[in-house]
Amino acid sequence: MENIITSKENPTIKLYQKLSSSKKERLQYGLFVLEGLRIVEDAIKEKSSLSHIIMTKYAYEKFGYVIFQADLRDTKTIVISNELGNKIALTDTTQGIFAICRIPVQKKMIFSENGRYIVLYGLQDPGNVGMIIRTADALGINGVILSGSCDLYSPKVIRSTMGSIFRVDTLIENDTEKLFGILKENTVETLASVIDKDAENINNCLFKGKQAVFIGNEGNGLPAEISERCDRRITIRMNGTVNSLNAAMASGIIMWELTK
Amino acid sequence: MENIITSKENPTIKLYQKLSSSKKERLQYGLFVLEGLRIVEDAIKEKSSLSHIIMTKYAYEKFGYVIFQADLRDTKTIVISNELGNKIALTDTTQGIFAICRIPVQKKMIFSENGRYIVLYGLQDPGNVGMIIRTADALGINGVILSGSCDLYSPKVIRSTMGSIFRVDTLIENDTEKLFGILKENTVETLASVIDKDAENINNCLFKGKQAVFIGNEGNGLPAEISERCDRRITIRMNGTVNSLNAAMASGIIMWELTK
Repeated sequence: MENIITSKENPTIKLYQKLSSSKKERLQYGLFVLEGLRIVEDAIKEKSSLSHIIMTKYAYEKFGYVIFQADLRDTKTIVISNELGNKIALTDTTQGIFAICRIPVQKKMIFSENGRYIVLYGLQDPGNVGMIIRTADALGINGVILSGSCDLYSPKVIRSTMGSIFRVDTLIENDTEKLFGILKENTVETLASVIDKDAENINNCLFKGKQAVFIGNEGNGLPAEISERCDRRITIRMNGTVNSLNAAMASGIIMWELTK
Repeated sequence: MENIITSKENPTIKLYQKLSSSKKERLQYGLFVLEGLRIVEDAIKEKSSLSHIIMTKYAYEKFGYVIFQADLRDTKTIVISNELGNKIALTDTTQGIFAICRIPVQKKMIFSENGRYIVLYGLQDPGNVGMIIRTADALGINGVILSGSCDLYSPKVIRSTMGSIFRVDTLIENDTEKLFGILKENTVETLASVIDKDAENINNCLFKGKQAVFIGNEGNGLPAEISERCDRRITIRMNGTVNSLNAAMASGIIMWELTK
């Protein structure tokens, strides 16, 4: 076994902790962090670019054989003490396996014929964003666009995607004008998801051609100027007293109808 | 204003903290706790039986007028210091308003003609259970049955329901034999939600009559003996590599199809 690192002052450990806690550092280095066996395996399987794999002594003995079956020529592996693993872990019951992953270079999104897209406009809860990406993957949504939403590469979003971050096409476009420009240029019909009984009931909607559905912020929904700017306005008809599903759940039901 | 309580040793505060942290204490006293303005208002609106309302001095000044519009003859109100409020709060940004609520006496569930029911069989994540109850409320599900699942009255479940706990019919039946007995006696068709491409695709299912869908544990799904015992087996057809939606999301999509 290699040398076991025990110090928080080790440069890789310091880098890992900076990337865990700060969006600014993630942007600056173009790196983000992973924790847990399944997501590290997913990253390897989907050929994501890992700069480092960090394992505790315990994890190295238990999972090392899984990891080293992969081609890790461009990946540096370090082994740390179990104590240090507990210090850098963000989950209560860590498996002691971590990685630093390169943020992929943003490519143009491909808007395919009959493609179905979701635009997360101002979503702030990382658990919601992660769950929507996971659901998009399961249901076969063609791409997820984030605009004014929380950081796609925060540890909480990444964890909630359960590995789908490596499989779903994503685009970050925080400039509203550019976002509508891209959608128009690609002849994508825009649909605003709203709570309004006068909007089209998604039960009766015809979904065809390229379409993108805008989902608004958890507390406030879509701003009026965005929903008015969309080609159509759609709604999930709800029962009596409740006028709001959780944002991830509403998105899930819409994605279900969009893709079935 | 009444006397402001500052001590953790106050009997109501001690009771609140016991109920916050222990299922055993909740069962013993038949009480559970609420935190936050919206859920306390929901409890009052839905005529739930509150034994105590606890407000910090700050909350009393800010929200007191909202609370005291209600008929609170059977409810004792106490005011505590802001510091004590921060100590008993379970959320990071507390509003300083809390309540102790009586667990309703369990009534027989009414299985109505064409009623739609969800059975949570072994669900362990309180956030999932709460989100399912919230979604059941929004979509008009007739009842939610918990069997071998986490405690319905834990603070995390209650918080995630966003007040729907007071509107959705619930039943706790941890004995599998009794559960199937109740469903049979009431001529409820049972459907097991499974991940199996040979099960009925919910897109093509005919949902009619009284039906209850069983949802299994987050990690393991339904035990084989349960899915075999159900009248039918249904599945959400999924995209390529992913074989699992989050349990709450899968339940949401199923409830959507059951009620639309």
